[in-house]
Amino acid sequence: MFMRKVAIVGVGMSKFGEDWKRGFRDLILEAGRRAIEDAKLSGAEIDGMYCGTMAPGRLIGQEHAGALLADWMGLNPMPSTRVEAACASGGVALRSGFLAVASGHHDCVVVGGVEKMTDVPGADVVSALGGAGDQEWELFPGATFPGIYALMARRHMLEYGTTEEQLAAVAVKNHENGSHNKYAQFQSPITIDTVMKSKVVASPLKVFDCSPVTDGAAALVLMPLDKAKQHSDKPIEIVASAQASDTLALHDRKSLTSVWATEVAAKKAYEMAKVKPKDISVAEVHDCFTIAEILAIEDLGFFKKGEGGKATAEGRTALNADISINTSGGLKACGHPVGATGVKQAVEVTWQLRGEANGRQVKEAEVGLTHNVGGSGATAVVHIMKRAY
Amino acid sequence: MFMRKVAIVGVGMSKFGEDWKRGFRDLILEAGRRAIEDAKLSGAEIDGMYCGTMAPGRLIGQEHAGALLADWMGLNPMPSTRVEAACASGGVALRSGFLAVASGHHDCVVVGGVEKMTDVPGADVVSALGGAGDQEWELFPGATFPGIYALMARRHMLEYGTTEEQLAAVAVKNHENGSHNKYAQFQSPITIDTVMKSKVVASPLKVFDCSPVTDGAAALVLMPLDKAKQHSDKPIEIVASAQASDTLALHDRKSLTSVWATEVAAKKAYEMAKVKPKDISVAEVHDCFTIAEILAIEDLGFFKKGEGGKATAEGRTALNADISINTSGGLKACGHPVGATGVKQAVEVTWQLRGEANGRQVKEAEVGLTHNVGGSGATAVVHIMKRAY
Repeated sequence: MFMRKVAIVGVGMSKFGEDWKRGFRDLILEAGRRAIEDAKLSGAEIDGMYCGTMAPGRLIGQEHAGALLADWMGLNPMPSTRVEAACASGGVALRSGFLAVASGHHDCVVVGGVEKMTDVPGADVVSALGGAGDQEWELFPGATFPGIYALMARRHMLEYGTTEEQLAAVAVKNHENGSHNKYAQFQSPITIDTVMKSKVVASPLKVFDCSPVTDGAAALVLMPLDKAKQHSDKPIEIVASAQASDTLALHDRKSLTSVWATEVAAKKAYEMAKVKPKDISVAEVHDCFTIAEILAIEDLGFFKKGEGGKATAEGRTALNADISINTSGGLKACGHPVGATGVKQAVEVTWQLRGEANGRQVKEAEVGLTHNVGGSGATAVVHIMKRAY
Repeated sequence: MFMRKVAIVGVGMSKFGEDWKRGFRDLILEAGRRAIEDAKLSGAEIDGMYCGTMAPGRLIGQEHAGALLADWMGLNPMPSTRVEAACASGGVALRSGFLAVASGHHDCVVVGGVEKMTDVPGADVVSALGGAGDQEWELFPGATFPGIYALMARRHMLEYGTTEEQLAAVAVKNHENGSHNKYAQFQSPITIDTVMKSKVVASPLKVFDCSPVTDGAAALVLMPLDKAKQHSDKPIEIVASAQASDTLALHDRKSLTSVWATEVAAKKAYEMAKVKPKDISVAEVHDCFTIAEILAIEDLGFFKKGEGGKATAEGRTALNADISINTSGGLKACGHPVGATGVKQAVEVTWQLRGEANGRQVKEAEVGLTHNVGGSGATAVVHIMKRAY
């Protein structure tokens, strides 16, 4: 199908969190430098760059981030392109880099993701993030993203008997995973009680059901598989890359309890990779809210529709259980610098497949998956990766 | 080099101008529908979409434009990606679509470009456009884009003796061309006197040296060349696609009188297409200000450095002269809805190569070029197209 196979040969990320000392360009520079060093590259070998970032125009007054990053990484005149698909910007950047290498157009591509979110007041962040939904039909009339996901949660509870405690179990597991990740924004375990007693944001979602506002960046280096061995002892092949779209507005969807774009992208990705959900041992899925992880593990085929909450509460998605979900801590505990998230997911899966995930290592991880969502499900991107060594 | 050749099989655009009746999604829908009809396609055949738009987050509160456009065009669950490179967003979208088809990943891609600029006060437009430059080093300290291009103009005048009248000649020619284009924002010819007597914006640039604020959209359909004949009697092959980056901030550049990113992208494009500047009969170049067209026709190799102003004043870039530059009217007269511009340039060159440009038709147009710039030259994208029939 493609001209050539594509591998990840280097990865890096910044410490996620509230970063008062560094700006947008510093964060991506740190992540990019780590990825390039990890790939044992010199800048001169890189011939293309894709960067995912959602709302730098509104958050820091800066568009044109592709060229900015090429400039600050000292990589001019290399072509550098920003892509944006709300919170799926990073996943779309990865897919863009994948296509550029698979096509034969580029031989060495850096894929970056970044967001600097804490330089503006919280209300402005909420407003900027609202741009991920349908401005005319959802945000202008007053909806916010916690409210939109709360509707999905309520419907899931009604249809399948999912409970608030089961939602809370997602947060507890992800904080436990995050406690083993030095890059995570939150590294302290929490309990079901912590979540249940936290303030309500949009019922049934409470503060600890929500991913945080985060500054951060992640980056990786892509090369044709046949050249990858020169730069990594442990190249990770991207065996599938798929993306799908759905309506921006939740009220136009066929269902509130499944994300159709995820289902479509997952089906394509499994076909492309010639694997089934049961073959995946580690997955980073898009848990912007706890309900989102439950929808994801169902829509990705890991559990039957309606059984995601129960499975999570039973510990079946914990580290080294049936399937290890969000070993990084996910968006919930590792943090959610929106444009960086999709790239960070691939960084984490790369570490897992290489056996470099330290205290949160999944045993015998052979095949990994990343799942990145924009808005409430208007974009979904799924990648599947395999060890190529 | 690539898996397969790529052709344009359909094009369309909205009437450019101040459009008080239609919004962002209406504009792209109109352009997209025209392109799809022109390609004699049904929506079901389309399997990917790329959209260039610069600042919808700041201009209309809407990010996630890729999914929004798939949704409004009725094309879900097709993957749809927004790319952004300031005023080069459209050119980068075209290159992204080109790579997606060349790679074998997509068989039929819609490339769109759109900007809705008149829904906010003028000062907010200026501020949003400022995001194309270096926010920390240029815009925050007070620079605006007319000011940045004025510096380039002053230096060109100093080094090469370019005159204000020669700058004005660019605007006069482009308004003349625009008068034959029913899609142009301005369709009235002007004189050197009109320009010279217009108000100074940033000396030496006056109102008529500047492209306007515009609402508009453009779209085209890409397919593999071997399938193109089924959809068009006159397929236009994209024989080169190149993009380059430079510093965002003008003060970091090696030169104020040439745009390095244009030179790099042009060199690559000419090599890829195996043509020379003298082989190009029609070109749409990035004349956001009159000085920008003079820089472009020099950096693209049509005229020697320093001779662009003189050549323009002598009429050598007029319709059917030595080389026909900006037959659409360019950004100056056709209008500059920033994200749409790079796509509109390809629409115009397609019409020219097909012989469908009516009163502004270039005789025996065989090879055309588009040149799209982001900011003051931090991104440049060059495409070369040929008749494939």
